[in-house]
Amino acid sequence: TLAWNGYRHLELYYAVSGMGAVCHTLNPRLFAEQLVYIVGHAEDAWIFVDLTFVPQLEALAPKLQEAAPGLGFVVMTDEAHMPDTSLPGARCYERLMMAVPASAEEDPWPLFDENLASSLCYTSGTTGNPKGVLYSHRSTVLHALGACMADTLGLWSGDSVLPVVPMFHANAWGLPYAAAAAGSKMVFPGAALDGASLYELLDGERVTVAAGVPTVWLALLSHLKAEGVALPHMSRTVIGGAAAPRSMIRAFEEDLGVPVLHSWGMTETSPLGAVGRLKGKDQERPLEERLDRQVKQGRGVYGVEMRLVDDEGGIQPWDGEAQGELQVRGPWVAQEYFKGEGGEILDEDGWFSTGDVATLDPDGYMQITDRAKDVIKSGGEWISSIELENEAMGHPEVAEAAVIGLPHPKWDERPLLVVVPAPGTEPTKDALLEHLGPRVASWWLPDDIAFVEELPHTATGKVSKRQLRQRFEGYELPTARDES
Amino acid sequence: TLAWNGYRHLELYYAVSGMGAVCHTLNPRLFAEQLVYIVGHAEDAWIFVDLTFVPQLEALAPKLQEAAPGLGFVVMTDEAHMPDTSLPGARCYERLMMAVPASAEEDPWPLFDENLASSLCYTSGTTGNPKGVLYSHRSTVLHALGACMADTLGLWSGDSVLPVVPMFHANAWGLPYAAAAAGSKMVFPGAALDGASLYELLDGERVTVAAGVPTVWLALLSHLKAEGVALPHMSRTVIGGAAAPRSMIRAFEEDLGVPVLHSWGMTETSPLGAVGRLKGKDQERPLEERLDRQVKQGRGVYGVEMRLVDDEGGIQPWDGEAQGELQVRGPWVAQEYFKGEGGEILDEDGWFSTGDVATLDPDGYMQITDRAKDVIKSGGEWISSIELENEAMGHPEVAEAAVIGLPHPKWDERPLLVVVPAPGTEPTKDALLEHLGPRVASWWLPDDIAFVEELPHTATGKVSKRQLRQRFEGYELPTARDES
Repeated sequence: TLAWNGYRHLELYYAVSGMGAVCHTLNPRLFAEQLVYIVGHAEDAWIFVDLTFVPQLEALAPKLQEAAPGLGFVVMTDEAHMPDTSLPGARCYERLMMAVPASAEEDPWPLFDENLASSLCYTSGTTGNPKGVLYSHRSTVLHALGACMADTLGLWSGDSVLPVVPMFHANAWGLPYAAAAAGSKMVFPGAALDGASLYELLDGERVTVAAGVPTVWLALLSHLKAEGVALPHMSRTVIGGAAAPRSMIRAFEEDLGVPVLHSWGMTETSPLGAVGRLKGKDQERPLEERLDRQVKQGRGVYGVEMRLVDDEGGIQPWDGEAQGELQVRGPWVAQEYFKGEGGEILDEDGWFSTGDVATLDPDGYMQITDRAKDVIKSGGEWISSIELENEAMGHPEVAEAAVIGLPHPKWDERPLLVVVPAPGTEPTKDALLEHLGPRVASWWLPDDIAFVEELPHTATGKVSKRQLRQRFEGYELPTARDES
Repeated sequence: TLAWNGYRHLELYYAVSGMGAVCHTLNPRLFAEQLVYIVGHAEDAWIFVDLTFVPQLEALAPKLQEAAPGLGFVVMTDEAHMPDTSLPGARCYERLMMAVPASAEEDPWPLFDENLASSLCYTSGTTGNPKGVLYSHRSTVLHALGACMADTLGLWSGDSVLPVVPMFHANAWGLPYAAAAAGSKMVFPGAALDGASLYELLDGERVTVAAGVPTVWLALLSHLKAEGVALPHMSRTVIGGAAAPRSMIRAFEEDLGVPVLHSWGMTETSPLGAVGRLKGKDQERPLEERLDRQVKQGRGVYGVEMRLVDDEGGIQPWDGEAQGELQVRGPWVAQEYFKGEGGEILDEDGWFSTGDVATLDPDGYMQITDRAKDVIKSGGEWISSIELENEAMGHPEVAEAAVIGLPHPKWDERPLLVVVPAPGTEPTKDALLEHLGPRVASWWLPDDIAFVEELPHTATGKVSKRQLRQRFEGYELPTARDES
């Protein structure tokens, strides 16, 4: 499928998997060569495509058919809207649906082994080819049950569920399956993800729970504020995909009265790994104390075990302080990538290394502190690049900031802070260090600060630490730290 | 185990199953010969026994050891309360616990195949030997997930859960497992199941959800009314094991503000099959309309399929009217009895016949209308003995009533109503028929009414339809029905 969130996409989720085939969702934001690689690697037989993406696909059709011989195309529309397309042998979705004999509706759904593959989603790292994560009927159903638990997303038959998160991104966090298991109503936004459109849909369809990434909510919150409107039907919102800022959680909770379920997951974890439902004892706390817990990514969903591991493989304590790479284990965590790409990904005890660095507090709230490849390893301790960046960006003269670790003869690595000054300002190194001084541990203070006009970014808008490290390769840090 | 609901019993649930052994719960209310049969059939190795049941066990010890050679005994108490017992080689529970080396606490729990047996419970029918239902780790975990879904019992980390239903009865409806999966607090009543004791516990431990059979709640409601107290901490109560009367559900909802989750299950279904959580659209209805739905036993838990089958195997519609034997299918429904007793119990498509007759309405609410062996099959249609009895007992001059089907040359079976008059009254046949006339379909009206001094009862206090049928064997029904 190459499609927005819509009812035809939902029909395909169930029809394709339900007949025993694999529903492979394609991300339309991928580069052309990645799409061609993925379609070929997955050996796709048919692509079901929304009208929006027909031109994109037409341009790629010859290469796609070369990569996946026999590939056919179905345009997800009715006959009245069927475009004049160059897609070879393109069929019309609704015409195909009409061709289904009425008697087929009485046929029972076929039964399969629970370990049969049901869906497929590729995850693209910063290097190398995208890797496929193949889900089974078993993992999908167990994951849906996890999402319906009262202490996680708690979907039930009275819910109206709006997945803003795309159905081509880790199965829209499993909501199309969980909503059906719970008997919830589903609402689909199609391509209209701006604040005004989302508000209209949330209000008109009396949505009780919506799920999406922080940028989507930022646009919605801004629209709500400008229009002076609220979300009286919503009982909670799910934020994941990236860390939700405290200010966003506060806006939902305080201004709108909508509790936030901050959550964490990966394509490799189906994706729900942790959900930030507050424990009973924490729900009655004052707002700021609740927010202290809600800025964390939540507690492990039952079925997903979590642990933190340091460089030597030592298990870190759940004290809210010790950092370690987050490892997870459970029945909806991938065992390998499709066709074995990348080799073994679980250790001998079945643990999957997430590539995220995190803390776990005594109540089980997990907080992502860094990407494992970005954390600065100084004298055997770990410095969170994300936390340093957030503190630096709190300074009024800093427009953007990034922290990378540079090699250091004594401490292995020490942090370099790279800053883009705010327009019309000229922040000094001393002023910024003075700002950071009371905010982070003294040994976290960057050894140097470099001022640049702009930072390199990835296609999805994140700072490219990889390019930044290349740019500062060989950069000499001052030696003051040595002597201290 | 031969024990009340208590923390040591919970420890055994996890310790025994967790080491890979089978935790077999014994029902102390069984007849002595049934207990001996069960212990032998199950090949029990150890019996963990509460102080209360030590005398009962002492009397049976020689027969038990003969039935299960090598059987040992552990008394669930500490050394200070260890009784002087004749149980051969009896050990003290807490002394055994102290003997566990401290290092054992650091050992990880062993891992097993998910299909390994974890617990065992026997169900006693009206005839034949009790039959064992063997649960696996897999079925137990899936069942716990079902119980934690927001639309069923919805257990979560903020809950305080009191199982009044015994841990020797279908695993206390799975609550000891579901509560752990959700992180809920558990509260145990021990032997104190009277209204005053239960109220003290519910109030003192701020219980948010309790589960038990109707008779227990009757005693509690009566205590609450007498004392003029309420249950402010409770957010719902679970009633199962037998049909909850409308008046009981109304008392919880209206007088106490505690929503009732009417539910249905069997030892063979782990036991949760259906839970009466109202659908979203039904929650806002006026009280009487809510009660119309809550007197039903609820909707199927996700994972449990339900259908109604008539005598010819025809599937009945979900119209709230058509009756049929309830069949269920799902991952926590037994596939056979332990050691294959009773032969195949699933049909070729995996459906289990519950022995209950029910209706299913278009929203999926299921209502038990009779036991299959008690329903009266008249002219190809089914008459609910339970409904006739309930209507008859609504007459002020009826103390107790039972309906059985008697052979009939034209209609196969016709109902006979057997009535115990209320003290000091002499109800007539005509008066009772007049009372029933406007309350049931005309073809449901009993062909005759017999007045008796008392009805035969089973050990658990239910009317014994089997004995009643024996007593009225050969009874001649009047022939009026033939002519009408």
